[in-house]
Amino acid sequence: MSMRTHYCGQTTEAALDQTVSLCGWVHRRRDHGGVIFIDLRDREGLVQIVCAPEQADVFAAAESVRNEFCLRVTGVVRSRPEGTINNNLKSGKIEVLCQVLEVLNPSVTPPFQLDDDNLSETTRLTHRVLDLRRPQMQNNLRLRHKVTMEVRRYLDDLGFIDVETPMLTKSTPEGARDYLVPSRVNAGEFFALPQSPQLFKQLLMVANFDRYYQITKCFRDEDLRADRQPEFTQIDCETSFLSEQEIRDLFENMIRLIFNKCLSVDLDAKFPVMQYSEAMALYGSDKPDMRVKLAFTELTHVMKDVDFKVFAGAANMVGGRVVGLRIPGGGAMPRSEIDAYTQFVGIYGAKGLAYIKVNDKAAGREGLQSPIVKNIHDAALAQIVELTGAENGDLIFFGADKAKVVNDAIGALRIKIGHSEFGKANGLFEDVWKPLWVIDFPMFEYDEESARWFACHHPFTAPKDGHEDLLETDPGACVAKAYDLVLNGWEMGGGSIRIHRADVQSKVFRALNIGAEEAQLKFGFLLDALQYGAPPHGGLAFGLDRIVTMMAGAESIRDVIAFPKTQRAQCLLTQAPSAVDEKQLRELHIRLRATEPVVKA
Amino acid sequence: MSMRTHYCGQTTEAALDQTVSLCGWVHRRRDHGGVIFIDLRDREGLVQIVCAPEQADVFAAAESVRNEFCLRVTGVVRSRPEGTINNNLKSGKIEVLCQVLEVLNPSVTPPFQLDDDNLSETTRLTHRVLDLRRPQMQNNLRLRHKVTMEVRRYLDDLGFIDVETPMLTKSTPEGARDYLVPSRVNAGEFFALPQSPQLFKQLLMVANFDRYYQITKCFRDEDLRADRQPEFTQIDCETSFLSEQEIRDLFENMIRLIFNKCLSVDLDAKFPVMQYSEAMALYGSDKPDMRVKLAFTELTHVMKDVDFKVFAGAANMVGGRVVGLRIPGGGAMPRSEIDAYTQFVGIYGAKGLAYIKVNDKAAGREGLQSPIVKNIHDAALAQIVELTGAENGDLIFFGADKAKVVNDAIGALRIKIGHSEFGKANGLFEDVWKPLWVIDFPMFEYDEESARWFACHHPFTAPKDGHEDLLETDPGACVAKAYDLVLNGWEMGGGSIRIHRADVQSKVFRALNIGAEEAQLKFGFLLDALQYGAPPHGGLAFGLDRIVTMMAGAESIRDVIAFPKTQRAQCLLTQAPSAVDEKQLRELHIRLRATEPVVKA
Repeated sequence: MSMRTHYCGQTTEAALDQTVSLCGWVHRRRDHGGVIFIDLRDREGLVQIVCAPEQADVFAAAESVRNEFCLRVTGVVRSRPEGTINNNLKSGKIEVLCQVLEVLNPSVTPPFQLDDDNLSETTRLTHRVLDLRRPQMQNNLRLRHKVTMEVRRYLDDLGFIDVETPMLTKSTPEGARDYLVPSRVNAGEFFALPQSPQLFKQLLMVANFDRYYQITKCFRDEDLRADRQPEFTQIDCETSFLSEQEIRDLFENMIRLIFNKCLSVDLDAKFPVMQYSEAMALYGSDKPDMRVKLAFTELTHVMKDVDFKVFAGAANMVGGRVVGLRIPGGGAMPRSEIDAYTQFVGIYGAKGLAYIKVNDKAAGREGLQSPIVKNIHDAALAQIVELTGAENGDLIFFGADKAKVVNDAIGALRIKIGHSEFGKANGLFEDVWKPLWVIDFPMFEYDEESARWFACHHPFTAPKDGHEDLLETDPGACVAKAYDLVLNGWEMGGGSIRIHRADVQSKVFRALNIGAEEAQLKFGFLLDALQYGAPPHGGLAFGLDRIVTMMAGAESIRDVIAFPKTQRAQCLLTQAPSAVDEKQLRELHIRLRATEPVVKA
Repeated sequence: MSMRTHYCGQTTEAALDQTVSLCGWVHRRRDHGGVIFIDLRDREGLVQIVCAPEQADVFAAAESVRNEFCLRVTGVVRSRPEGTINNNLKSGKIEVLCQVLEVLNPSVTPPFQLDDDNLSETTRLTHRVLDLRRPQMQNNLRLRHKVTMEVRRYLDDLGFIDVETPMLTKSTPEGARDYLVPSRVNAGEFFALPQSPQLFKQLLMVANFDRYYQITKCFRDEDLRADRQPEFTQIDCETSFLSEQEIRDLFENMIRLIFNKCLSVDLDAKFPVMQYSEAMALYGSDKPDMRVKLAFTELTHVMKDVDFKVFAGAANMVGGRVVGLRIPGGGAMPRSEIDAYTQFVGIYGAKGLAYIKVNDKAAGREGLQSPIVKNIHDAALAQIVELTGAENGDLIFFGADKAKVVNDAIGALRIKIGHSEFGKANGLFEDVWKPLWVIDFPMFEYDEESARWFACHHPFTAPKDGHEDLLETDPGACVAKAYDLVLNGWEMGGGSIRIHRADVQSKVFRALNIGAEEAQLKFGFLLDALQYGAPPHGGLAFGLDRIVTMMAGAESIRDVIAFPKTQRAQCLLTQAPSAVDEKQLRELHIRLRATEPVVKA
């Protein structure tokens, strides 16, 4: 005998005149004309329960229930009277006349109303169980489930094999900071939680699994930003014997599928592809938000001999850059808005924000309004107007500094203006899904401070065919078979073709200043595996939390994770992390360092 | 342009006369009549490549390849000549006449032959990548994938939602030993890796998710046995508003489905159900192997007044037990085998192994052959024969000691004899799948040493209806709504109806000697959640590693895990755990204790 016959939210006129049993929570209770109405809620939605005074025991019980009481109701389904039909509810044409009302569990008064949309994050995370009862959180987590299930079905159909890789693995302090786990059995030694299953999935390719996937937790002990968590979930994939193009096609189809199945959204039939160099040139970013209809104009070569020192200095500096950002219709922007943008770019290290208003192109210098015009010679001004394609009524912002500062500052400005009221009103923002593959990343980037090259992707990424020699002669010119999938300015995932030849892998380690001995110590098992006929292979990993956040239209990845951590890496629900017994530490062969008293945020 | 058109193992006569491209590894190469034959292997199997001397370049390349070279072959599919067809291979009717042979990656000589079945586990785990290329390991891990995928499809169809719970969580040193993770941000505090998502899944029920599942890693830092790993994988499930019977039915169907889909095995249409008390009475085990056609006969009440002190002592001892184990046809067992069993039960603490051979029932005492007969009076002897149902030619073994020793020793003996050559020859073993639900476990067991009650399942298990008062008056008599699914003597999974009322939960904590303050500190978030109309709920968890091990017919769970740890909790492939930098420890606010030098096994 089941406790229920239907979900509340799925009880419809199909059950008319039937006796049904329903279980759920009191969402709202109201007394109306001597009759008590209860909106009973379960995960599928609401249904209206009617407790009439003729049923004295039911009525008395109904009088005692409060919000969030857990009830079991048995009653007869009947049509709602004319005029009381609620078309917003699936159950809105019917109501259930209660015959038996059983309180399965009472509830104390909740600390907040479930439909209060103005709760602080601290309140929500402290009372996460109640927060998760809210329809938005229910929807988010069900969407997450649906996405993962569609991903699994898609990959399973294509012969991908879900293989679990270890959570207790080896610390290789190369990328981010590891979470460490002291070993009890092996005193003084530590496991690390995986930052990604990268090396294991490569080993699985060498081991002839051909197509691997795993939806798995990864860990990085970094200071947290809005879209980061200490533990996050990757859709991790690897394949053998496929080209970069084939891999991209395969996963592009996967993304298209989940948007179609889960959101009924049809993404572009073919995602555009852009080289890294073009993305940086036009948008100052390797994950450009293509919804914003604004792009940089390269002006470095134009500014070499102008009197305006900020421009000329940047144009002549090694690694300097000058760009213009044309804002169509921006001439109408009030001075206050321009000032706000000047402050905004300061966050990214820009020391100012020069601009020119184009009032009248035909009038030459006289038609250009700006404090800086007087220090720029005619030929350069003409070039600015011509290259940016500016029309009368436009505004041109300028960035001039080290390339990184220009890219970051004017790249952020581009997004900011695109998303602003002004941008939306002036057609600078297209509110659609804009996927983009960014490809041909550089192999390495140079770090001035440590005076060495770092891997842009990771040290297992293959160079473009023909670029192998550049690993030794000109690392900065070496392009990688690496690719990122970007959506609306978010990196959804990225991957690469991997190195499958031990000699190439050794060259990359050398370029990264990782000596033979260190390489053997840290990655010996990979180098060893590459010797046994490792196949050409490559893959990628998607950030599941981010994908679902975007798809759900959520503010933060914390809204698509059932039990997330705060930005101080704490769980407000369980109070983890916490102090542990001295006995536990002793068994693990560690002790606490004496520390300054820590002030908790 | 793809690197391959077919998988090697799937190239068949359907591709006759077509040009195909194949990628794979040299499994075997042989020179036969001036022609080189290569068995090329990929994950789908083998195909025969023919390299004829007429194609000089191909032939030369073929001469240079060695086992485990990774090749790409382009050639034409043709029928094999009469008499060379290999019906063991899917590709056995065809061969590929090679036109282009490309060495994608050479291989050094592997440390062992892939078809060597006598490798030590150390060799296999050290060279795990090559070990994983072996067909048996490929099959095991693909079976594992298939099982998980079928589980997911089944649960998804029934409305279960896959929700991820945290890996970095709170240490609650109740059950097994936790793996700890020092926090960098919160100095002196630690996360614990989850021993199971038990509390989180209960919170998800309170949060109205109604049906939850997750296939997830769990962690226990215990000394390892053959079927244990530091990290293991659970199919973890929870439901609201279902009865124990409904939950068992639902998951029984799941197990039946995976056996049908993955092994084409039809398990019993209805799994038998046995009470814990009956299982202990008949088999001395809560996970009896029902393939063995032997059962205990309770003789405690018969032996109270016999002269044989071992029997009388156990029969009159508080918590003592005397049982007989009738072995049909066992009279023919040679003395050497009986002696071996006597040694065997010693492992389980039994101090001897009494037996009686039934030569001639009709002859009374004279017909019973045993050193102990003389110390047992006639009435008791008659009872032994009658209660065990012994026939002429049978043997009866006896266990007499504290109940635990009897259950362990004679339970193990029952299995041992059932699985022996003797048992198989005498119809004592039925080689089939024998699932069994064991239900009605006790709530608590008493630990003499610490003089307190412990939870048999876990402290969140609900008592049987009507047993709530026993929590306070007679904990030992209190039966739990707990159930295990047992298959062929292995516990595949177990679960319970949980406590959903805060007052009952507090009673259980009290019975377990967990004070209010301690309960609040450790489980405050659960007690808090129970106050907000927690629904009746229950679930269970299956051990995926074990299920797949059984289904694969593997020796050890290490054979169904891609990268397992040794019994010393080490990864021989990556050499985890390992020493870490002092800098890392400092960031985590810990230091190593000075320890004796550790000698590694």
